Amino acid sequence: MPAERPPRLELWPVSGLPEVEPGADLAALIAAREPSLANGDIVVVSHKVVSKAEGRTVSLATVTPSPQARALGRMVGKDPRIVEVVLRESAALLRAERGVLICRTHHGFVCANAGVDTSNAPSPETVVLLPKNPDASARRLRGALQRLTGRQLAVVITDSFGRPWRHGQQEVALGCAGLEPLLDLRGELDSQGVVLRATLIAIADELAGAADLVREKRSRQPVVIARGGLLRIAAQDGPGAAALVRRPEEDLFR
Amino acid sequence: MPAERPPRLELWPVSGLPEVEPGADLAALIAAREPSLANGDIVVVSHKVVSKAEGRTVSLATVTPSPQARALGRMVGKDPRIVEVVLRESAALLRAERGVLICRTHHGFVCANAGVDTSNAPSPETVVLLPKNPDASARRLRGALQRLTGRQLAVVITDSFGRPWRHGQQEVALGCAGLEPLLDLRGELDSQGVVLRATLIAIADELAGAADLVREKRSRQPVVIARGGLLRIAAQDGPGAAALVRRPEEDLFR
Repeated sequence: MPAERPPRLELWPVSGLPEVEPGADLAALIAAREPSLANGDIVVVSHKVVSKAEGRTVSLATVTPSPQARALGRMVGKDPRIVEVVLRESAALLRAERGVLICRTHHGFVCANAGVDTSNAPSPETVVLLPKNPDASARRLRGALQRLTGRQLAVVITDSFGRPWRHGQQEVALGCAGLEPLLDLRGELDSQGVVLRATLIAIADELAGAADLVREKRSRQPVVIARGGLLRIAAQDGPGAAALVRRPEEDLFR
Repeated sequence: MPAERPPRLELWPVSGLPEVEPGADLAALIAAREPSLANGDIVVVSHKVVSKAEGRTVSLATVTPSPQARALGRMVGKDPRIVEVVLRESAALLRAERGVLICRTHHGFVCANAGVDTSNAPSPETVVLLPKNPDASARRLRGALQRLTGRQLAVVITDSFGRPWRHGQQEVALGCAGLEPLLDLRGELDSQGVVLRATLIAIADELAGAADLVREKRSRQPVVIARGGLLRIAAQDGPGAAALVRRPEEDLFR
């Protein structure tokens, strides 16, 4: 007897998006290229296009590096103007070695170069920053997409972060709206009646990573649609990806 | 004009697997419940059933805690017999505070309790260990599944790990066969001709997390099938998830 068909999770990239300019209406661009959006879909967006639409870019020609930025730039082998921007985006510099600056951003994210990025930038002399408030960006994009499409949707905004102990970057959630970023199973029982160990699951990060598996990074595919599986969107925007950020005093590894 | 239909990634759980006993033929159980396996599919398996099939469980009644285990147990509020098993599975204890033991296992994984787990165990007095060599387990399971089904497949074996800086656990790859765990884009160019920043992508971990989004943890769904997207399986078993492990001397956060 075949098993009952379980719910599938499907992910696919939105094709044919144009280059995103400052002030671009990202919701309109997505809705135009993805007319099949349905209730419950989650729109997973690489932060880069959100930052560009929001004008969160810096022309390096306008940046005067501080003495600290110049010294750090010499130490790690980076353009001191980029280091200056990284320091402005950072609440704390955690490590500076082996060509890498590991920073805690003003949002509380711990990542290389405070998320300041030279790839997929509008020009080689321009860097792209993280959105100022990625949860607010996710809420705005969600609201606009819902108004345009008449569908109930969620939005996750992502970036690639390295991590300690393991090689490789993984896409994580910087912002979200309409999705609880953490699935809380604390106190729930396993199939043997024992309390589950994995009790708080970072589904927004797992979804960010899943979306990365369908996105051709070298072409222009910053938006992925996720449909189905166990993902359930919420009527409320919810706590956002801010709920994923450990405060320094809660963290064993700083 | 509608965009050309991009390749979708689909994920679904295998339903109706029985409780896995020591010595169980996991490949036969999976092949029986999932007759639709196709060339290129990736079989993502929670390590728990692999460990159980391999007899990687310990009855706590057989464990005599050392003085160190008793002292640590008192300090973090854990059964000293479980602490003893955790220490045996550990190459190093990195942190012991707030009820948590963070260990580097003999494989090099950094995780809570060296992966020793009391949930979904055969009984409350039994703990489940990580597989001795998860890449070897993945290779064996892949070989057996390919022989049984006549299909070209890949296998990823996973567990839920916490991580620094961010709340929540995320499923990661402990072992893999037939899938390159890291997608290496070093030196490739973005759409503007600039070298990509995110250059080494931990796709095996992203896939482990993706599989977690369709698996109902409270019921018995340890196996998920992934099909499509940009995932490409390899003829060779490849380097395994060992390639994801940073050596301590390469790591900025120890």
